[in-house]
Formats: sequence, C-alpha cells, structure tokens
Amino acid sequence: MSQPVELKKELGGAGLRGQSAGTTALCTVGKTGTGLTYRGFDITDLAHNAEFEEVAYLLLRGTLPTKHQLDQYKSRLCSLRGLSNDLKKVLELIPSSAHPMDVMRTGCSFLGNLEQEMDFGDQYQVTERLLAQFPAIICYWYRYSHDGVRIDTEDQTESCIGGYFLKMLTGKEASEMHKKVMHCSLILYAEHEFNASTFAARVCASTLSDQHSCISAAIGTLRGPLHGGANEAAMEMIQDWRTPEEAEVKIMGMLDKKEKIMGFGHAIYRESDPRNALIKEWAKLLSEDVGDNYLYAVSERVESVMKREKGLFCNADFFHASAYHFMDIPTKLFTPIFVMSRLTGWAAHIYEQRENNRIIRPSADYTGPESQIWIPIEKR
Amino acid sequence: MSQPVELKKELGGAGLRGQSAGTTALCTVGKTGTGLTYRGFDITDLAHNAEFEEVAYLLLRGTLPTKHQLDQYKSRLCSLRGLSNDLKKVLELIPSSAHPMDVMRTGCSFLGNLEQEMDFGDQYQVTERLLAQFPAIICYWYRYSHDGVRIDTEDQTESCIGGYFLKMLTGKEASEMHKKVMHCSLILYAEHEFNASTFAARVCASTLSDQHSCISAAIGTLRGPLHGGANEAAMEMIQDWRTPEEAEVKIMGMLDKKEKIMGFGHAIYRESDPRNALIKEWAKLLSEDVGDNYLYAVSERVESVMKREKGLFCNADFFHASAYHFMDIPTKLFTPIFVMSRLTGWAAHIYEQRENNRIIRPSADYTGPESQIWIPIEKR
Repeated sequence: MSQPVELKKELGGAGLRGQSAGTTALCTVGKTGTGLTYRGFDITDLAHNAEFEEVAYLLLRGTLPTKHQLDQYKSRLCSLRGLSNDLKKVLELIPSSAHPMDVMRTGCSFLGNLEQEMDFGDQYQVTERLLAQFPAIICYWYRYSHDGVRIDTEDQTESCIGGYFLKMLTGKEASEMHKKVMHCSLILYAEHEFNASTFAARVCASTLSDQHSCISAAIGTLRGPLHGGANEAAMEMIQDWRTPEEAEVKIMGMLDKKEKIMGFGHAIYRESDPRNALIKEWAKLLSEDVGDNYLYAVSERVESVMKREKGLFCNADFFHASAYHFMDIPTKLFTPIFVMSRLTGWAAHIYEQRENNRIIRPSADYTGPESQIWIPIEKR
Repeated sequence: MSQPVELKKELGGAGLRGQSAGTTALCTVGKTGTGLTYRGFDITDLAHNAEFEEVAYLLLRGTLPTKHQLDQYKSRLCSLRGLSNDLKKVLELIPSSAHPMDVMRTGCSFLGNLEQEMDFGDQYQVTERLLAQFPAIICYWYRYSHDGVRIDTEDQTESCIGGYFLKMLTGKEASEMHKKVMHCSLILYAEHEFNASTFAARVCASTLSDQHSCISAAIGTLRGPLHGGANEAAMEMIQDWRTPEEAEVKIMGMLDKKEKIMGFGHAIYRESDPRNALIKEWAKLLSEDVGDNYLYAVSERVESVMKREKGLFCNADFFHASAYHFMDIPTKLFTPIFVMSRLTGWAAHIYEQRENNRIIRPSADYTGPESQIWIPIEKR
C-alpha cells in the first residue's frame, strides 16, 4: 500500500461532500441514518435471502430474476471463465511482489485490448465477461507467482462466483458454509452510491469511453488506502493480538498516539453501518466452526473499546477481516474480492451514466500566481 | 472508437458544470473569456518561446528551470526510455487491431506492477519514468504490431520528447521544423484545469492511490470520444475532401442533418480557443513545406463555414489534425500524443491533490423505487 511521506488529509479540499453530482436509481445510503438499499431492497433482506448472482442481476438488469433467468445467468457466467492464453502470459509476467490490485487493474485493462467494447449495445456481455474473469485473473496470478502452479480456470462445476473463487484459490471445493459467507460478503460490497471508485467510473463513462477503461479507473481508485483496503488494514492490526486484554491495551495506546484505526466510522452513516451486523454474524459462526479461541474475541473487544472511547461503530470492513481470515484467504487478496463484488455496482452506474450523459467537468478555484512575465532561459 | 447504440448525451445529468470541486494553482481557463495560463504564464508566450520539457518542468516543479536544470532534466528523461523486456513482451501480445489508447492504458498499468510507487516521496521519479516511457510504449507496439519490427527505444541522441517520438515512429531523425511543431503541440495539450481526465486522476488520487492507477484512470477517461479523439475525428472527416468547395457542400450537408462537427466550440471558452491560432500557424507552414494544395485550404474553409453558420470557433483540436497529418503521423496515434503531453498536467494535479487531500465522494439524487418487499425466488 502506498504510504504518503507527508499526509495532510482532510485539512482542506472540498471533496464534493454533500454536493450532488448526478442522479441514480441504484442505491440509497444512510437515508434513515442507518439504512442501505439496492433498487429499493433492504440490504438485510438481500444478505439473508439472496445469492450474489441474484443481486448482480438486480443491480445490472433492474429486477430480481426468476428461477429460470437466474439459472441461465449463472450458467452463462460459468461459460465465460476461461482465460485466454495471451492474458495468462501477461499474468505470468507479473511478479509475486506486485500489489494484487495492480494485477486486477492490469488484467482488466489488457482484456480491453483483446475484447474491445465496440458498441454500447454489448455492455451487458462485457460486464458478464469481467464478472466471470476477475476471480480467474487474481487466482491464476496468485497461484502462478506464489506457488508456481498454472491453474485451470475453466471449472464449471461450481456455479457461484464466491465458491469458484475459493476453489481456484485452494484447489478444492468450498464448504457450503463458506459459500454462504461469500454470497453474503459479495452482496454487502456490491454497491454504495457515489463512493470514490464508482464516481471515478462515472467520470470516465461520461466521456463515452469503453467499459474496460471505466472499470480500470474504478479498480485503481478502490486501491487507495482511504477507500478499499480497510479490511486488509484491520487484519494486519489485529492479527498479532492473542487476548482481548492485549487488544484493549494496544488499541488504547494507538488512540493515545492519535493513530487511525481502520474499519471504524463512515463518511455517510451516522449511527451504524447496516452491513456490520450481517458480516459479524458470519464471523462468529466461522470462529466457532474453526475452533478459534481468540481472534473473534479480540475483534469484539476492539469494537467495544472503540464505541466506549470514540463513539465509533464498525463499518462493513472490520468483521470482514476475521471472516476472510477464518476461511484461510490471504490478507492481500481481500481488496480483490471487493473488486469482484463492486464490479456490479460500477457497471450499473456506467449504464446509468450512458443513459443520460453529460460530460463530468467541474470547475476549480484558482490559487496560483497572477500573470507572470516570460523570461528567456538565458536570463533566468 | 466506441459508438453508443442510443446516445442521449446532454439531455440531463449535471456534469458538475460550473461547480467548484477543489483548488488548483496550475491553470486558468477562459478567465478573460479567451485566455489560458499555466502557473500564470500565458499559453502564447509558452508556445512561442519554450520547449515542451521546460513547460513540463514548470507544471511539475512549480518554476521555470534554469538552463542547467533543463539540461539535467532532459538528460535524465533520456536515460529512462528503455523498455523492460517484460513490458515489451506484453506490448507484443497486443494485436494491431487494438485501440491505441488501450495500449497506453495497459502499458501504464503494467509498469505499475514492475515499478510500484511505494512512497509518495518518489512521485517525481514515477512521473519522469512515464514521460520517458510513453512515446517508447506506443511506438514499440505500433511498429511491432503493424510492421513486425522490434525498435530499440534506448535512443539518447534526440533530447526532446516530441522529436524522439517521431524518430521512434519513422526510424529517422525528425526535421528541425517538425521538432518545433511537436514542442508547440505538446505545450498546447499539457494542461487544462479540471477537464474530465484530470478530474478522474484527482478522484483516484483522493483515495491516496498510486500514480500508475491515477494515470491509467486519466488515459481511460481521455479515450472517450467526447474528450480526446476530437483531432482524430476531425482528420477522418476532412481527409477525403479535395477542394474547399467540396468541403463547404459536405459541411452544410452535415449541419442540415444536425451531425456533430468535431473540433469546434468548447465547454469553457466562449469567444475563441487561444490554442487554435498557435497550432493553425504551424499547420499553414507545414502545408507549404510539404507542398499541400488542398488540406489546409479545406481546413480553413471548414473554419469559416462553421463561424458563418453556427458562430462556432475552432478549438485546439481542429488544426492539429492537418498539422499531424502533414508530419505523416498515423491518425490513430493522435490521441496517444495527447497522453504524452497531458501526463504533465495530470501528474501535477495528482501532487496537488495529495498535498491537501480529502477523499472526493459526492452525493447523488435518488430516482429509484421506494422500499420494495423481498419475494422469494420460487414465488416470482
């Protein structure tokens, strides 16, 4: 993760906070102070009842699918998983030291050279291809660069994206429980209105650029530590703490030093993040399933200390850290999972932008020098 | 270029027009209705007197360089031109049918895997590397995919970026005149406040992401036909017209059919684009130099018909088309030249955003359905 030499964040710069930059029919965030809806459906209903592919269909096509439509959709996605030989060669050229989000961005960008979106009439197919390819891209690179293994990504026996990702990563079929966690996780991360990465995708779409450009821009934007990466940072923070007591001491020390604790608070939600309770429930079940005797307890203690000391609540990211960890997912792959999910929201926003477009071109307040006189180089 | 099936542009969507999205010390656009300044220097002074590398230094470092500083800067850029073997392999995998802007975006993105920006203290070096690599990337791909030739990009005899680009493209040293045109052209395209691609770079930078992500986002945004690509579209329009009379008939016909004529008017300038006179001057000289007996005359006629019929002026792009054409630059490489130049503005804006950052996260007006009741899939 890039570390700024001198980080003066939030000292200034409007960030367009609270200013409307357009319309959307996709999502409401914090409308009642807490809620999150996708096309009018409450996130809790979706996370408890839906498969991720159902929610992807809802976001991208506008309505919940029938059973027949969902079956067709999933089997089409399955058929699009095979990586081209040229894309595999590119992934094999990326070193194991690379940032996994750079791998995702490059995989998406390179694919645009091979399968250019020539006509916006093809936009659904372009998105479906990316939905199918992203788990394959990241796992192919990860297994090749870390283990020297060339995996076969054409697997069609696992019909769901989350289960397919786990299977590609580990080489064996995921448990039913793990598949359910992945459905929930991918649903929670799928869409979140005009967050920075989605907004970057819309700015790009507003010049009528192609989808691979828009999604590459979004991946690059999500990569920043102020946006994606909070669950990775939370994991790195808690992974060495062995008891709730140790966690409390460490957190109090960090707060004393005014260090930022990742996974807490939110730019929009005021009272709580509705996604937290949903993933926390799974983190608890996973903890019991693996016989964990400290990580979940440590996480709960961090949550209560943050509430007591700062009045801050966990956002979607905090309990994602332990949940993913209990499923043996390497920490550096947490944000690429976010990409596999948020792709649906990004693409749905790109479609919306194209439907009713005006190029996004704001103004700036000028703070530079007034008129300067040219001095020839010999006289400087 | 992507063509939308159903293009409803400018029917709605605020596009943030006229709304401030932050501050900048880099540029004023249309402050007096016509002018353009970089750090207070008038574009006309810069285009008449400076080398592109001088302007790059001004934008990126804040002041005009001394002779010694400029010499050092140019020789450092020269030393950074060699492409890594792995990047060459990736470029060789991109087919000749690819969109050249997809090649630029992928080259930039792939480089981020090999040379990750780990610390913002390295930001100047990352930009310098990209300044040196972009002409090499596009020419290496172009010559390999179109001519089967693997060029040696490590040339250090040509000290300027524009001349180096022409040399890599043609295999022979550019004339003094062509080098001067390239200086002027690269200066004119270097910076333009919060245009869409620059704004995309700033949105990406606002999450504290790395420079390769920000620049990839900007390239993808510039790729859209409403942003970059206007000079290519102008060239495609005028290239088959052999007399001013033919051009007038064709333009009148296009206006009758309400077709968009590329290279005219501007979102910000009201009376004229100050860059037009500067590149038009060179287009005329180049026309005389090559003994052209119709293209420049056709271009002038299009200009006068558009003024007479629609009151519209040429923007920076229109006479760039014929100027580049007279230098034998393939039309599909026009927008990649824009990238080589605008990289300076993008990077300078990224530095500014990092200096005084707040994540860019606007709001949206919700137009979707009110609360919807979940229906299990069996009952749909």
